[in-house]
Amino acid sequence: MFDSLPLCQCLKIKYPLILGGMAWIGKGALAAAVSNAGGLGTIGSGSMTLVELREEINRCQMSTTKPFAVNILMLDPAVEEKVSLLLELRVPVVIFGAGNPGAFLETFRRAGAVTMGVVSSENLALLLERAGVDFIIGEGCESGGHIGSVTTMVLIPALADLLRTPVIAAGGIADGRGIAAAFMLGAQGVQIGTRFIASVESDANETYKQMILKSGIRDTVVTGERLGHPVRVLKTSFSKKIKRMELDSSEEAERLLLGSYRKAYQNGNLHEGSFLAGQSAGLVHEVSTCQEIIDKMFTQATTILEYTNTHIIERRKNEQRGSI
Amino acid sequence: MFDSLPLCQCLKIKYPLILGGMAWIGKGALAAAVSNAGGLGTIGSGSMTLVELREEINRCQMSTTKPFAVNILMLDPAVEEKVSLLLELRVPVVIFGAGNPGAFLETFRRAGAVTMGVVSSENLALLLERAGVDFIIGEGCESGGHIGSVTTMVLIPALADLLRTPVIAAGGIADGRGIAAAFMLGAQGVQIGTRFIASVESDANETYKQMILKSGIRDTVVTGERLGHPVRVLKTSFSKKIKRMELDSSEEAERLLLGSYRKAYQNGNLHEGSFLAGQSAGLVHEVSTCQEIIDKMFTQATTILEYTNTHIIERRKNEQRGSI
Repeated sequence: MFDSLPLCQCLKIKYPLILGGMAWIGKGALAAAVSNAGGLGTIGSGSMTLVELREEINRCQMSTTKPFAVNILMLDPAVEEKVSLLLELRVPVVIFGAGNPGAFLETFRRAGAVTMGVVSSENLALLLERAGVDFIIGEGCESGGHIGSVTTMVLIPALADLLRTPVIAAGGIADGRGIAAAFMLGAQGVQIGTRFIASVESDANETYKQMILKSGIRDTVVTGERLGHPVRVLKTSFSKKIKRMELDSSEEAERLLLGSYRKAYQNGNLHEGSFLAGQSAGLVHEVSTCQEIIDKMFTQATTILEYTNTHIIERRKNEQRGSI
Repeated sequence: MFDSLPLCQCLKIKYPLILGGMAWIGKGALAAAVSNAGGLGTIGSGSMTLVELREEINRCQMSTTKPFAVNILMLDPAVEEKVSLLLELRVPVVIFGAGNPGAFLETFRRAGAVTMGVVSSENLALLLERAGVDFIIGEGCESGGHIGSVTTMVLIPALADLLRTPVIAAGGIADGRGIAAAFMLGAQGVQIGTRFIASVESDANETYKQMILKSGIRDTVVTGERLGHPVRVLKTSFSKKIKRMELDSSEEAERLLLGSYRKAYQNGNLHEGSFLAGQSAGLVHEVSTCQEIIDKMFTQATTILEYTNTHIIERRKNEQRGSI
């Protein structure tokens, strides 16, 4: 049903959905589960050593015959080695985050990979389009993790107006309503992260998953704004402490933040952990398999689109017939 | 076409659109223009004396036979007198902002007015529903003016899940795409503010209107966060100064903010004025009449809904026929 959309045409996948690139959580097994379920799974390379990244890509390749992506961060100190590894392993899709990929983009294009870039502003989107990226993922500030300042409702129409490149919407989407809304705004697909943290195949620890289920829509905060790198995380005593601290003691705050994502993911450490999540955590109510999650959200999206339109078309016909 | 929607049924208006309640800008003439164009115009009472409010309601009543609303702020020192005035003048629709209307809600219901409440959280929405309000306007943080912390993409589905009361979406909507998206998220209508500041009938000064046209999606900031009352305004040297100042000298910041909305609206004073606007200012590109704005956005919304769905239904039929 969605197969004429550019993401589905290009990659021969069933659903126009990309798993958000997530440090720690974006393992090969989760990526394979999303790909097997008909979306595009994504391995998050930012938290991995080269050895770990190779292992996770191998694991993914052994667990799915479908395409998958690797998310690579431009600020990664090992970015050049990771680029080489992705080329060596013939990773089919590369998603650039945290900045301009520069010459790497051409390298991957020549290698035949599909390329995508995550943006939170029009400026970077234009640069990426001129450099020839295949898809632009516009990420609204309601997302988890590193964020910009513009919301999905505003960013996506602005990018759709500006670009010829297909736009994928990210941020605030956890079910079929967000997917349907993203299409209305001008997107041709969606990227979803938080919803999949609370999946069976995610290896985030149980505390993390339960915190997402228990979170309301107002239970995230943005730390690091004063430090120049705003990151959205679940509200905990630790994240609230960081927010207070960064006003006065930015070095101390930075020190505490080091390693805090790992402590959340591995140990569910509420006192020292940063639990990345978007505001859509408030819309996530159960842990399900990736297949269940994806089938349900796209069934819901289709139903919403059909219902609304049938309603409008019926009334239009009635008006024309003069029965109103 | 939209007449079976609750807002249209209830008020006998053509389009499920409410003009956002805006201090200074929400005059009787603008409200009447929106009502005459098929939406629900709103007079913003917050910046008005009792005499001014009476004049503006009278002006509106003389300029339209259609329903209109008055937005009344619970934090207004003159709230009781304004409530009496609205009852005396038989204002048909009352929209409560900035808090819980308490006993006023029942007063207006008994008087036969339609009541609405603006919320940015689930808590206040539930209180208002229990008190019997007719519509809940969920306002995402991308809005102009006083804001909460949750974006429209996340707030609207959460409210739709929680409430039986119809939800109206506000925040980030400037054209048909946002309207269509709002319906997908579970709203049954929209409230729009920023787009109408840049209308012919708005009496905001020309500088203000031009600044909206020139603004990009990233050209707003939130001032007053440190002071406990976050407000979204256009980015100017003044608003940036306030943001810096409120970290250290909150009294000085408060002093400068006093009267700054009026200075923006009346004089276009860039050095001392606060120009309220939402992030959707970046999607506003021309000054038009309210009729042109409203007709265009609803035509666009309908087209988008029909096009997407026709596409999906066609492919579904093809799949069933086995031609894919």
